[in-house]
Amino acid sequence: MSDTTATADIGVTGLAVMGSNLARNFASKGFVTAVHNRSYSKTRALMADHGGDGQFVPSESAADFVASLKTPRKIIIMVKAGGPTDAVIDELSELLEPGDILIDGGNAKFADTIRREAAAKEKGINFVGCGISGGEEGALLGPSIMPGGSAEAYASLGPILEKISAHVDGAPCCTHIGENGAGHFVKMVHNGIEYADMQLIAEAYDLLRRGAGLEPAEIADIFAEWNAGELDSFLIEITAEVLRQVDAETGKPFVDVVVDAAGMKGTGTWTVQTALDLGVPVSGIAEAVFARGLSSSALQRSGAGELPGPNNAWSIKDKDAFVEDVRQALYASKIVAYAQGLDEIVAGAAEYNWDIDLGAVARIWRGGCIIRAVFLNRITEAYDGKAERPASLLFAPYFTSAVAGVQDSWRRVVAGAAQSGIPTPGFGAALAYYDGLRSPRLPAALIQGQRDFFGAHTYKRVDKDGTFHTLWSGDRTEVQA
Amino acid sequence: MSDTTATADIGVTGLAVMGSNLARNFASKGFVTAVHNRSYSKTRALMADHGGDGQFVPSESAADFVASLKTPRKIIIMVKAGGPTDAVIDELSELLEPGDILIDGGNAKFADTIRREAAAKEKGINFVGCGISGGEEGALLGPSIMPGGSAEAYASLGPILEKISAHVDGAPCCTHIGENGAGHFVKMVHNGIEYADMQLIAEAYDLLRRGAGLEPAEIADIFAEWNAGELDSFLIEITAEVLRQVDAETGKPFVDVVVDAAGMKGTGTWTVQTALDLGVPVSGIAEAVFARGLSSSALQRSGAGELPGPNNAWSIKDKDAFVEDVRQALYASKIVAYAQGLDEIVAGAAEYNWDIDLGAVARIWRGGCIIRAVFLNRITEAYDGKAERPASLLFAPYFTSAVAGVQDSWRRVVAGAAQSGIPTPGFGAALAYYDGLRSPRLPAALIQGQRDFFGAHTYKRVDKDGTFHTLWSGDRTEVQA
Repeated sequence: MSDTTATADIGVTGLAVMGSNLARNFASKGFVTAVHNRSYSKTRALMADHGGDGQFVPSESAADFVASLKTPRKIIIMVKAGGPTDAVIDELSELLEPGDILIDGGNAKFADTIRREAAAKEKGINFVGCGISGGEEGALLGPSIMPGGSAEAYASLGPILEKISAHVDGAPCCTHIGENGAGHFVKMVHNGIEYADMQLIAEAYDLLRRGAGLEPAEIADIFAEWNAGELDSFLIEITAEVLRQVDAETGKPFVDVVVDAAGMKGTGTWTVQTALDLGVPVSGIAEAVFARGLSSSALQRSGAGELPGPNNAWSIKDKDAFVEDVRQALYASKIVAYAQGLDEIVAGAAEYNWDIDLGAVARIWRGGCIIRAVFLNRITEAYDGKAERPASLLFAPYFTSAVAGVQDSWRRVVAGAAQSGIPTPGFGAALAYYDGLRSPRLPAALIQGQRDFFGAHTYKRVDKDGTFHTLWSGDRTEVQA
Repeated sequence: MSDTTATADIGVTGLAVMGSNLARNFASKGFVTAVHNRSYSKTRALMADHGGDGQFVPSESAADFVASLKTPRKIIIMVKAGGPTDAVIDELSELLEPGDILIDGGNAKFADTIRREAAAKEKGINFVGCGISGGEEGALLGPSIMPGGSAEAYASLGPILEKISAHVDGAPCCTHIGENGAGHFVKMVHNGIEYADMQLIAEAYDLLRRGAGLEPAEIADIFAEWNAGELDSFLIEITAEVLRQVDAETGKPFVDVVVDAAGMKGTGTWTVQTALDLGVPVSGIAEAVFARGLSSSALQRSGAGELPGPNNAWSIKDKDAFVEDVRQALYASKIVAYAQGLDEIVAGAAEYNWDIDLGAVARIWRGGCIIRAVFLNRITEAYDGKAERPASLLFAPYFTSAVAGVQDSWRRVVAGAAQSGIPTPGFGAALAYYDGLRSPRLPAALIQGQRDFFGAHTYKRVDKDGTFHTLWSGDRTEVQA
């Protein structure tokens, strides 16, 4: 029942800031954009304030909204994740026709997306779970977009999304990630990496502050300088800005008047929980989540004064050399965090049957999103056009030699922090992971021995096939299990 | 419909090794024990092989089994967790009367136990989710038992369980943990701590082996010696046994012929995932789970040879001093692992409304279970009879000063491992956590600044109430949010 008077290329329902900015982005790129919101006042406000951005088709009812769209209809849902998303899907599904495309642009859990895609498919509707990163500004000016769903849906939807996405070196920061939940899965891991990245930067700052005794303004200069090199990234850039900020009221550094309790909204936690389900070590991301948890535990923080620290402060003779050590430690730890995040994507793809191009994922993270960084070009190169994907980003020659080149600094920093009592859970976990990955033999063999001893869990031998058990409480001979 | 001919005090259904050993334990302690299994052959085998252990009442049908029990009936289900447990509960529920007690002695997820308890209550049946630790030998000779469920159920069930549990200093290793899922929750955390404990021991071994160049037999002697001091515990004891073992076939140390890929069955993973839901940092347990994951990732291990390590080996001049450093580092890291696990119990109790006595939990872990250790007496003392519970085990005076006394060694070991390339994710995470807990200010303030910059997530100020936002892309003044 396609309405021949339908004119809109794409529709957005849910016009809070993210949704209305996304609608304005579509309209300003030349797409006729249908807009709808549960209460019409928001739609009216969007038209009044930004109606001039391009061609909008506002509707008060869901039926009119759907009728205003050209087929196959493309509707982006920008409402709260969870129940509200399901409610909108239910309402719209009744109004759509087979072949129409329903896009969830919220931060849904990928498992919900898998469920919703399967349910929509029953009705012939193409459901696209779509990760969108970049916050309010990204939504308006060009986000990084991670759409999942069918290739068929991407064929007609993709060009529109690519046009409104951020662009880097002429390439859109949008690509088809994979079937059903793949887009939201990759967006989740993106956020997990963001947690790790922020924690590592915070540790670098803490080392420069508490270790070298530098003031926030001096550290701002250091970050600004780092931003001109291989660490060039949005997060490093804004760190310099935040550290340079002076509180107008007290004249103190801004960072000193802010309560040191970091909030979180859940995607970091999901990333680690999902990695645990998949058996993938993501210690860098986990430590970032734990560090936020510890920082906001009023109960645990209350005892800080009671615990003694080391007797020796860090004796740093050459401050410039120390700053460079910290930079290199940050760089190495960051590579590990990305390696772990990419491992989680590989494991997720294997588990859920997605065909995910890691090089393309790194490419679309180069612009629009929080973790955008020059460094992502190197990740893309590590995967693009390679006959065989390296089993870890750390095994890609560029990164192997990058880490080799900075590891002395990295080790000095982690060792110095341990000695002087400055917590570097992220740097330390990354280094321990690297050394674990390097080890031809791990003490896991002892753990297998313990497990066989107390639980008869059996073990394998290095020199022959089979499964074995030692009769620990008997004569300690070995038997085939 | 209580059968006046009923004679059994307790029943066990599911007669695989754990179930049949538990039944033998009951019978040998003087309880008339009803036994039942889906296929009668297992019941017959138990009677044939161990019928002399005490008074058994075998039944072929579930109805006869139930009829053989005195009211209120007490039945322990020892079948596979998940679907099989639900199936047995469904079957037995039809046969039981209000007031009867159904006990799940498997490794159920605590959330399943909460659900099952609520469903059973509808029928007037007392459902007890009961953690049992100690493996096959513990089940037979005295396990550590962690029953949840109602106080009413514990009143009649508790004395029986206490009698068959392990005993230490005359006290049973069994106590009523708390309502509904509390028992299985505490058992889960027990297993998480066990993971951490084993990982820390493995790291200590690796340091002695790769760092100091000692042979397994020498390290066995060291662990045996450690077992005579404050580390005295089952896991340290069996570590010495495993390291002393020589492979009969090759003449090599046993630990060198075992494949270094550690297996796991899920409870460590659940512990970390649950901690993440609760916002509790359990980095020591997480690193243990991750280390097992890394050890068994064939893909990732395949690249070990490609990654360069540090140029310098550890130059250890005084081996005895080094061994003592490692012992102290192990002790401190172990305290942190327990502190984190107990924090998770406290957080779980708050979330699910359980009244859990931490001192009693530590007391019942002193015998029968894998993490049994002399050290648990100190934990009990840290909580018993205290008007206010310390916000972390680390704030309990005994442990504060224990860690203070060993921290120089701990820091030397973590620093040396970082410099020399021996992975100590557990030791390192524990130290970073300790230093985080100690810090009057954490760099989380910078993270809050970043979050406010890119996502307008707002922040709090140290000097006044309210929630604030800086207009980062405007004139950078601060506004009330």
